[in-house]
Amino acid sequence: MGLVIPLEGARSAPENLKPLLDLVSEDMDAINRIILDKAVSDVDMIPELAHHLIDSGGKRLRPMLTLAASKLCDYPGDKHIRVASAVEFMHTATLLHDDVVDESGLRRGKKTARMIWGNQASVLVGDFLLGQAFRMLVDVGSLPVLKILSNAAAIIAEGEVMQLASAKNTATTEDEYLAIIDAKTAALFSGAAECGAAIDNRPATEQAALRSYGRNLGLAFQLVDDALDYSGDSARLGKAIGDDFREGKITLPVILSFRRGSDKEREFWKRTIVEGKIEPDDLAHAVMLMKRHKAIETTLERARSYGAIARDALAIFPDRPEKAAMEQVIDFCVQRTN
Amino acid sequence: MGLVIPLEGARSAPENLKPLLDLVSEDMDAINRIILDKAVSDVDMIPELAHHLIDSGGKRLRPMLTLAASKLCDYPGDKHIRVASAVEFMHTATLLHDDVVDESGLRRGKKTARMIWGNQASVLVGDFLLGQAFRMLVDVGSLPVLKILSNAAAIIAEGEVMQLASAKNTATTEDEYLAIIDAKTAALFSGAAECGAAIDNRPATEQAALRSYGRNLGLAFQLVDDALDYSGDSARLGKAIGDDFREGKITLPVILSFRRGSDKEREFWKRTIVEGKIEPDDLAHAVMLMKRHKAIETTLERARSYGAIARDALAIFPDRPEKAAMEQVIDFCVQRTN
Repeated sequence: MGLVIPLEGARSAPENLKPLLDLVSEDMDAINRIILDKAVSDVDMIPELAHHLIDSGGKRLRPMLTLAASKLCDYPGDKHIRVASAVEFMHTATLLHDDVVDESGLRRGKKTARMIWGNQASVLVGDFLLGQAFRMLVDVGSLPVLKILSNAAAIIAEGEVMQLASAKNTATTEDEYLAIIDAKTAALFSGAAECGAAIDNRPATEQAALRSYGRNLGLAFQLVDDALDYSGDSARLGKAIGDDFREGKITLPVILSFRRGSDKEREFWKRTIVEGKIEPDDLAHAVMLMKRHKAIETTLERARSYGAIARDALAIFPDRPEKAAMEQVIDFCVQRTN
Repeated sequence: MGLVIPLEGARSAPENLKPLLDLVSEDMDAINRIILDKAVSDVDMIPELAHHLIDSGGKRLRPMLTLAASKLCDYPGDKHIRVASAVEFMHTATLLHDDVVDESGLRRGKKTARMIWGNQASVLVGDFLLGQAFRMLVDVGSLPVLKILSNAAAIIAEGEVMQLASAKNTATTEDEYLAIIDAKTAALFSGAAECGAAIDNRPATEQAALRSYGRNLGLAFQLVDDALDYSGDSARLGKAIGDDFREGKITLPVILSFRRGSDKEREFWKRTIVEGKIEPDDLAHAVMLMKRHKAIETTLERARSYGAIARDALAIFPDRPEKAAMEQVIDFCVQRTN
């Protein structure tokens, strides 16, 4: 775990994210104010713990999707700001619970909340943030938006349970893996984008297009995430590489290496991933096996193909800066290195 | 922990709960069907774990409050059934997370879910059930009901964090303790009852009356719960007495004994509750100190006085069987022995 040096410089916005950032920067300021406001509580531990995560330099990709989608649909109101804030709270709640479930020590180059305040507080503050998210959505008062995001909340949790049940199971197929990331990651990307249209009751075709854009972008994002866990640069990543390996998490690079490997290689995966008997050189060996079987390349290739679907989903919208910015986000998700 | 013998006989309905049970029995059958239906998932662990708790003989007090309140308000529709089901799911989600936070081994005489499926699954299935609860509420489509119950969800979590922050702190005042149980317990009782009126957009006075009834009933319920943890009969209770003591939880019986005690007695509370150095005879000694200072009597007295407020809250409604049944629930909550 001595691999990580958080570099602030690595956090400056990548080229492909800039058009989106420019587009939503004013709204994002408003969102940051709402987030600070809604993380307030008389119970000191709540804002302390919430801010630890909220201020930790996340990209706020999901709320930006809501903002961009609502702009793409020419939404004239201001409700998108609160919906986007709720999306970020839902995401933050998920991260808090994820870190407890995965027993993670680092996130974005900082100690996880559970390492500072404990698992108990992380579970409960996660619950609080989810409650606040629904409160905000109820205040906004759009039943279509509530429907999309309450669906997402249940599906995300279902995906996390699926992932837990498939942990250490090398028999997991690529399809099962896709079902997991579809639920645990793509559901919120999808809901975030769809809400931008739903808030203004846009035609079903536009809502479906944004839902598909978000979903496929989320799949690509998670595939790249899983590839980076074996191929990333720890310093840029802000977390140790090999976390998934140590946790026995079955991600696509492992599934492909296992399926494409020799019997002897499968023994290696069983010893490390299933039995958790990991020796110092095993991560390097795992990475070598992935190279041998082009598992990372294939994972990134899959990400690119979902990215292409996301791009096609946007095709029904006229060409304009919002659309171009959302297309570039696909490139960002596929090409990102942290 | 060898104290517990679950007795099915002890689970038969107490006299005071029967009028309510008779009133809502048909609706409760429908609720039980919905609960089974909504705990379904392709992910096997979800229904298994959810049913463990759902089938474990809970009294379903909270959803019954929603049903009774809607009947008291002459609600002619059928949405109250789904709202009440969502209330029970919210409660079940809270129990799952509570048991993780409290590291509990037994609930209602059975092993807790976390002892069987682990903390990770308990956290995630709790999240799933909360997500399902909101999904059901969104399907019902009443924004007033959504507002009440999303508020409750955030407040419950806030109360749990408050309780965590005050754990092992003997300086906790009775007011602080009340703020905790108001949030962690009374908020859902209150919301459950209020929803019965809100679903039919009844006048504000009726909604406020039911909100107050539920809140004070919840306070009484929790006070009695905290008294029973030191005075109950383990076999009837379905859990070991002294759980709160072993967890260093500051409840009213401890607060009163600490405040009313001698310096030497306070040393005892500090060693046991704060430092967690508990020897075999300490629980018996704690109970003796509570008897000496009438801490259990006072706690039950407080419960009765909140019960009286709950009764007065109902006074604006005309005399009829629903009202009488809801009044008897107060007696049940105050006099219960499990």
